[in-house]
This record gives sequence, structure tokens and C-alpha cells, in this order.
Amino acid sequence: MIIDCHGHYTTAPRELELYRNAQLAALAEPSRRPTSTELAVTDDQIRESIEKNQLKFQKERGTDLTIFSPRAAGMAHHIGDERTGKQWARLCNGLIHRVCTLFPDNFVGVCQLPQVPGVSPANCVEELEYCVNTWGFVGCNLNPDPSGGYWTDPPLTDRYWYPIYEKMVELDVPAMVHVSSSCNPCFHGTGAHYMNGDTTAFMQFLTADLFKDFPTLKFIIPHGGGAVPYHWGRYRGLAQDMKRPPLSEHLMKNVFFDTCVYHYPGIELLTKVIPIDNILFASEMVGAVKGIDPETGHHFDDTKRYVDQLKGLSEGDRKKLFEGNARRVYPRLDALLKQRRM
Amino acid sequence: MIIDCHGHYTTAPRELELYRNAQLAALAEPSRRPTSTELAVTDDQIRESIEKNQLKFQKERGTDLTIFSPRAAGMAHHIGDERTGKQWARLCNGLIHRVCTLFPDNFVGVCQLPQVPGVSPANCVEELEYCVNTWGFVGCNLNPDPSGGYWTDPPLTDRYWYPIYEKMVELDVPAMVHVSSSCNPCFHGTGAHYMNGDTTAFMQFLTADLFKDFPTLKFIIPHGGGAVPYHWGRYRGLAQDMKRPPLSEHLMKNVFFDTCVYHYPGIELLTKVIPIDNILFASEMVGAVKGIDPETGHHFDDTKRYVDQLKGLSEGDRKKLFEGNARRVYPRLDALLKQRRM
Repeated sequence: MIIDCHGHYTTAPRELELYRNAQLAALAEPSRRPTSTELAVTDDQIRESIEKNQLKFQKERGTDLTIFSPRAAGMAHHIGDERTGKQWARLCNGLIHRVCTLFPDNFVGVCQLPQVPGVSPANCVEELEYCVNTWGFVGCNLNPDPSGGYWTDPPLTDRYWYPIYEKMVELDVPAMVHVSSSCNPCFHGTGAHYMNGDTTAFMQFLTADLFKDFPTLKFIIPHGGGAVPYHWGRYRGLAQDMKRPPLSEHLMKNVFFDTCVYHYPGIELLTKVIPIDNILFASEMVGAVKGIDPETGHHFDDTKRYVDQLKGLSEGDRKKLFEGNARRVYPRLDALLKQRRM
Repeated sequence: MIIDCHGHYTTAPRELELYRNAQLAALAEPSRRPTSTELAVTDDQIRESIEKNQLKFQKERGTDLTIFSPRAAGMAHHIGDERTGKQWARLCNGLIHRVCTLFPDNFVGVCQLPQVPGVSPANCVEELEYCVNTWGFVGCNLNPDPSGGYWTDPPLTDRYWYPIYEKMVELDVPAMVHVSSSCNPCFHGTGAHYMNGDTTAFMQFLTADLFKDFPTLKFIIPHGGGAVPYHWGRYRGLAQDMKRPPLSEHLMKNVFFDTCVYHYPGIELLTKVIPIDNILFASEMVGAVKGIDPETGHHFDDTKRYVDQLKGLSEGDRKKLFEGNARRVYPRLDALLKQRRM
């Protein structure tokens, strides 16, 4: 079985965007507030948006199940207030729930949280609980920078974040550390802000002792870990200079990387320097890069092809990377699959 | 000949720090202002600080010449005002000039600029001109984020930066894009802010047309290019999706990466995916990581060892990476070496 741990509903029907526009317009002029919190989207619309895109790619590429969450750039935690944020998260998560209900064999849900810059993540506990307990979601996306590129909230290792970690531990769900869009003109979203968020989060974990307080807390750092595996020597060296424990003890029971790296040499490096137990297969499709690589004739984000090309990956390691690690990091996914005798 | 294009004077005599403390204390209390702009540092002190560190490593590792600049974290453009910034840059650059005068065979100067957040880089033209014309410096370090981690100035491709680019082009000197210390608690300096600065700058260049306006402008992106080579497929794909020209045409006549990547697999990837013409040897010593890698028994930052281990690097490519590319990117260094018949 091949589990893709990183997919976003980037192809949602246009009604979602129109709703968001109305919701944001109401920040300036309350009379423009959408009259309902229901989205006028039919099951057929959802089916079509998935069948023509994510499902088609799953079939073509030979993957089975995608851990699926709302569009990351769409979260835009820097826009609006607590009230609109909560409504927006519930609406986006509700669409994910509908996708997972329509295609239960192909998608399992991960939720967006109603984060707001400067507001305690305690306000996200309710949404996480609801999505996990009511809808059967298996994790959440946690934005380390709700300001959208100005990094005005404390590092992820600060006690500020503890309320959401306590709930994650209680529910036994991991978070993917995932920024949203950038409103800072210095940072291109998918080309800079995403990578920087990944690199930054890893270094925050390295310099602190978060996992002493939460030994079972788990994070997936997406996009192949940002700059981290490429600079693995630097990080090992920085940890050593700072008298931190070896990374294997200090972080690697709690921090995982996905395989969203869009060329073979990158995947080769990732699997060479990072322990296989810490790598989860993912493609981020349909996502950041949509085109076909003229050098290979295949989609840049068809990451399974790169993994398949790896020499010297044992069958056991291959199974871990494609399935076993995801089931270990997302225990509720594992329970769900066991229920289905998979 | 082996040219290391990235070394900082991280081992300057303690008087420099004491001077800086007094200078910054005077921001709060003018009576604490240092009475002189001269630094009470003797040539013997400078000799000792270099001989025991950078020069020792040059000899041990078999490199010849370091392109040398003030400590990057010490620039701290976010502290002080225009007046203190100019004084501080001149003082730090003056020390580099003294090192280069005492050890002319081993060091060539690159200057710090007196950048100030929100102040036009036009105010850096004078210092660049002075360092190049009076002291024979061959380049400068340009901080893409003088705010120290809040990224409040425009992207490097904005016309805001053009005054310094015009002078760089006129003088025929390149800039290394190099952030300074981070005052944002989210960003560890050498582990996050440095990498993020590199990745961010590359993506800024990718999305704009700066090199149409300045066809001969050249930048070195240090620390192996941040996350960029590891994600080279992503960047090629993003450029393609955005209908940008192929990166080879669009950026690679103007943008170069150094080899400050502290393990063999990283250097292997860098030299595999980035054209050799765009890679300049560097170690950043004595810099971010000072320790010895227990996996190899050698210093993490002894990057020459990794390059020496590369299989299939032709003698011609090796010469480019170690010498030829640096002489091409720093034309004033080339002229200097030719004068010395090297």
C-alpha cells in the first residue's frame, strides 16, 4: 500500500473562493457577510474536482491513499479575525470531510486550524477535537507563522503553543508544520516561505527541549525538510557545538520529513542522510509545481518515480517509506486501516 | 591555486567588541560614545588572531587565498542609526584592510556595508567606493534583510536597491548576499536565518527581471545556496509554471553558489545539479560550525575534503571550482593576481 501523507484540496469548486471573498468583504462591510455557513457545493461538483485531478494522479502514478487537507495557501491565518478564522477552518475542513466520505478508500482527512496571529493556539483545540472525534481526521496542519511572513508569534517550542500540543498528545495525532501564503513581498510563497518555514521549525526544535515535555508529540516537516537534509552536516555540527544531544536521540523520535522534493538527486540525498524511519512518502499533488519536467518527460511532483529509482533501498525500507512510517506517525490512520483489515 | 571565497574575521581582537559595546551604549547615553574612531589594536594582535586561526586552517587544509570580510553576525544592521552604522562599517572594514596588508598572499578584502533598515542603500555607495578604490577590496556583502529577521525592506529586485547595484556595476565588483544576526526569536542565526536569506534571495531573483537591467551584476549566494540546489527540480518547475526563461538563461550568468555545505552528500548534490561554472569554493571558516565531525574525524567546515572526494570531477572543472570561477566572478581579484603574475 502506498500512502501519500501530503495532499491539499487545491482543486476545490470555485464556490469556496467566492464564499471566502464574501467573508473577507464583510470585514470591511458587515452587510456583505454570507448569509449561511453552508457552502452551495454539490457532491457531484466535489466528485468531479477530485476525479479529474487527485484521483486521476493517484491511479496514474500507482499510489493508494492520500492524507488530505485544505489548501495550505488558502488558510491565510493573517487575514480576518478569530470569528472569521473559525468559520473558515470549519468550512474548509467540512469539504475535506465530504471528499473523504465520497472516496473513503482514497482520502483520509487532516484539518486546518483557526490560528490567528497573537492569539493563543488554545483557540484551535475545539476545531481539532471536532475534526478528529466527529469526522475521523488523523492529524492537523500547524502554521508556525500565522502572520504570513513576519514571524511575530513565538517559536514552536514556546509554552505559548502548549495548549494545542496537549490536545494533540491526548488525541494521538501529529501535526504537519505548514505555513500558509506569504503577505511579505520578500517571500515568494511556495518558493521561499514554505522552505523557510520548514528550515526554521527544525532549528527551533533543535535548540529547545520540547520533546522532554511531550515525548510522544510528532511533527512532519514537509517539502523534504526545507534546507535541512542538504545541510545535515551543518545541523549535526550546530547541535554538537551547542552541546545538544545527538540528533538521533534529540529529535528523530518526534520529527519526520516528507518526500516532496522534485528531482531525483534531492530524493537520493534525503534517503542517504536521513534515517529511513523518519521519511514519509508524499507528493504535495496537486500543488506547488504543476508542470512536466522536460528533462524526464514526467510531472515534477510525481515523487514516486524518484523513490522507485533509488538503488539499494531494501524491500523493508521501501515498505516503511511508503506505508509503515505513515501508519506509525498517524496512529489513527493505522487504526482505521486495521479496522478495514488493511 | 585554491581560493576560498567566503571567510569572515570572526576572530578579531576583543577590542572590537568592546568598541561596539561603547558605541551602542552611546545610543542610550551620548557621554558613553567612544572618544576616537581608531581601534587600539596592534599589528601583533591582528597577526596572532589570524595565525592561530584562519592562516593555520589554510595551511592545514591546503587552501591559498581567502576572500575575507568582517564577521557577518557582527554587522547587525538592525541596531543603531545611520551614523553609528557608517562608523561601524568603516571600523570593521579597516580591520580587514589591515589583515590583507599584513598577509597580502593569503587574504583579499570584501567589505561590510552601512545598511540601515528603511534607509536607501544609496547611503552605502560611499563605503563601497572607498573600500574598493582606496583599499583594493574586490566585493561587498549585501544584507537582503537589514531588519535582522523581520524582512521589512523591499525584495532585492526592487528599484530601492538600484543605487548600490549601479555602483557595483561601475566598479565591477560582485556582492555576496549575506544576512547578519537575527533579532527575531523565531530564527536561529546560522541555522535558520542564514539559510532562509539564501533561499529567499534566489527566489526573488527568479521571479523578477533584475538582470535585464543589470546584465553584468553578479551575486554569490552563500551556504551552498540555502535550500535551492536540494530543491532544484522545484525551482526549475516553478520557473516553468511562471513562464520564466530557463534558469540557465535567466539567472545563471549572474547568480553563483558557494560550497559551504558541511557534509559530503550535500557537496555531491550541489556539484551534480548546479553547473560547475556557477560554483565557487568556500568554507566559511572560522564560522558557523567549529567542531569536528565524529563521523569523519575532520572539521565539519573543511569543505575541501568533500570536493576532493568527488568522483568524476575533471581536472578542468576542479580548477574552475577552486580558482577560475572566483577569478571570473571577482574581476578585481583576477586583476590583482595577474599583477602578481599568478
